[in-house]
Amino acid sequence: MSFYEPAYAGRVDRMKASEIRELLKLLEQPGITSFAGGIPDPKLFPIAETQAAYAEVLGNVTLGSQALQYSVSEGYLPLRQWIVSHMMTRGVPCTVDNIVITSGSQQGLEFLGRLLLSPKDTALVEMPTYLGALQAFSAFEPHYDELRPEGGNHTPEAYAASAAAAGGRVKFAYVVPDFANPTGLTLSRAARENLLTLARELEVPVLEDSAYAALRFEGTPMPSLQSLDIRCMGSIDASRVVYCGTFSKTVTPGLRLGWLCASREIIRRLVLVKQATDLNSPLLNQMVMHRLVEDVYDRQVEKAIAQYRGRRDVMLRALETYMPTGVTWTRPEGGLFIWVTLPDGTDGAALLERAIAEAKVAFVPGAAFFASQRGRNTIRLSFSLPDEEEITTAIQRLSHLLAH
Amino acid sequence: MSFYEPAYAGRVDRMKASEIRELLKLLEQPGITSFAGGIPDPKLFPIAETQAAYAEVLGNVTLGSQALQYSVSEGYLPLRQWIVSHMMTRGVPCTVDNIVITSGSQQGLEFLGRLLLSPKDTALVEMPTYLGALQAFSAFEPHYDELRPEGGNHTPEAYAASAAAAGGRVKFAYVVPDFANPTGLTLSRAARENLLTLARELEVPVLEDSAYAALRFEGTPMPSLQSLDIRCMGSIDASRVVYCGTFSKTVTPGLRLGWLCASREIIRRLVLVKQATDLNSPLLNQMVMHRLVEDVYDRQVEKAIAQYRGRRDVMLRALETYMPTGVTWTRPEGGLFIWVTLPDGTDGAALLERAIAEAKVAFVPGAAFFASQRGRNTIRLSFSLPDEEEITTAIQRLSHLLAH
Repeated sequence: MSFYEPAYAGRVDRMKASEIRELLKLLEQPGITSFAGGIPDPKLFPIAETQAAYAEVLGNVTLGSQALQYSVSEGYLPLRQWIVSHMMTRGVPCTVDNIVITSGSQQGLEFLGRLLLSPKDTALVEMPTYLGALQAFSAFEPHYDELRPEGGNHTPEAYAASAAAAGGRVKFAYVVPDFANPTGLTLSRAARENLLTLARELEVPVLEDSAYAALRFEGTPMPSLQSLDIRCMGSIDASRVVYCGTFSKTVTPGLRLGWLCASREIIRRLVLVKQATDLNSPLLNQMVMHRLVEDVYDRQVEKAIAQYRGRRDVMLRALETYMPTGVTWTRPEGGLFIWVTLPDGTDGAALLERAIAEAKVAFVPGAAFFASQRGRNTIRLSFSLPDEEEITTAIQRLSHLLAH
Repeated sequence: MSFYEPAYAGRVDRMKASEIRELLKLLEQPGITSFAGGIPDPKLFPIAETQAAYAEVLGNVTLGSQALQYSVSEGYLPLRQWIVSHMMTRGVPCTVDNIVITSGSQQGLEFLGRLLLSPKDTALVEMPTYLGALQAFSAFEPHYDELRPEGGNHTPEAYAASAAAAGGRVKFAYVVPDFANPTGLTLSRAARENLLTLARELEVPVLEDSAYAALRFEGTPMPSLQSLDIRCMGSIDASRVVYCGTFSKTVTPGLRLGWLCASREIIRRLVLVKQATDLNSPLLNQMVMHRLVEDVYDRQVEKAIAQYRGRRDVMLRALETYMPTGVTWTRPEGGLFIWVTLPDGTDGAALLERAIAEAKVAFVPGAAFFASQRGRNTIRLSFSLPDEEEITTAIQRLSHLLAH
């Protein structure tokens, strides 16, 4: 058998399979408890309401004909109007011209990488950070520098000098400020202000990935970075924050719908990117999502919070009860993840192999979330999928492995 | 009001709004007859069957939970299996490992640009060619050189030398071989063989955009480029043709589903691109499309052919009856488009302004379809949307404008 391989673009060397996505395949094995994928519990999906919404749109010939046709790249107007009212609850006054619909927030991140990054430019990211963001950005061949919003950031001059030494300039700072993937941690108010000051001095946009922001179990809600920047700059059109939103963790990831909210100038360019990329997200799905959020958004968020809070509590209790000394972990106030640091010298990837074989437990080794070669002794546990009893017994088995 | 504009990537200069997409907005004016968008007639959409398919998937909790969850990047297996059997009818023996699902063929073209083009590389395209392909490729900053498959191609050495002079190398040849957008023309058998020989000598892939291939009204079906290449090379895994398929012109564009069929080696890399771009196309839509194509694909194609053939006949008759001498046009054997050449010195864009204002007729000026500054005296007419009587009277009004 002979193979044909064309000459690929330079960026292809940076395209690697996600360990998480590869793991998703492993997890189809029966009997494995999965703390791996950061995916919502399908028992929370509003299946009946979704069915009713499709029937409502497709049961009407005028609506159905519209829904099954090509559509505008910026997205379905009533859904963008709902998002405008939602953004107001996040402290962000805006209009529909500040919103573009994307196929999940993954596509939003990919668009921002495309809009901003030339090869050798620098992206500032936390280490660890969301793996999907690194995948989206890496296609555009950036250099990464470390953001430490809670303290220890370099000076703007030092970041700029590093970026120049790498052959480009700093193009943006990317953060997941609330219940971050993978750490579960939330940026303090001071860290938010510091980050915005840094971005103003560097004159770069801040990409605020709000994927988990709605899932707060307890404590005081933090103002979004975008709301803080608008308070300082006067309006969203003068703001340097791009807010990446998604319906994946609250309603369903299956319709692949998210949005970007930013100044009209940036959104106007993102609409052109959307047009060249896939013309438009399916209008039918957007019409259905509009009906779903009008109908069930608040209820979905309440259900998700109750479910995931209970599972977090159980996982934290099990970690405290069973983990040997030397193992530490975060205590998230929301979201889907707990970040575990193993004793020095313990390798998360090697532990995963043993955990699947000997303890029937899966998770993601933490090194995957670093743009640098670090974090070998960390792992990410997601508490979103297994039920409370299963969480307890699986943490017990995993702890037993670590104790021996 | 102050605005914030970040420093964009170099590729942003090449992102322009599609004149066609901008026109789509104009056309919402009542009373205009649109020969502009190359969009299918919504009266052909299988709305009731689509509603039934959504109800079937979402009416079952197991299927519904699966459909609303994240899914694998390569696409829904049963849909890929249907595509394998469909590709066999195009003379292409392949397996599911040769197929990746995309969000319309637009996304497939964008992925291929990303996979293959570094800045200053050369893409070989016909002039004129599909505007959406130029938009997708241009984001990756290529140089364009002209492909003339029916005769007049440069030698491989001349193409290679031009590409080197432009600072890169030839990376692919892109064609719409059947009922092309915008010309309506179909490549002869000899042109197909010539093109494949050229690509073999240049050692580059051929991107075969088959968007309209199913819509043949008459004449002998031509073998797909991919089938011809497989006959020569022995198997799809040894073939250099990437086949871009879509359900948009036969079933519905609204679910935004298409596919790429190519060697396993290329598909493996395209799956990584899909993963980094938007994770996966909505599984729910893929499950629905699978049910639709199993149920109605052949019937949809028959209905579309009957409808569009009638409209093409009427448009050709009207052009013959009413157009002044000096105006010429193509006689397509299928598809959605007739390409009209106006007398030298007549500007298609200026005619459009007059046509909308004075004749209530819209179309796309031909210059939009050229990667070079040419084609000012051409226009594209789509016969897919207006009914037969409307086509006749609108062509009469447009011809009257040209005669005066």
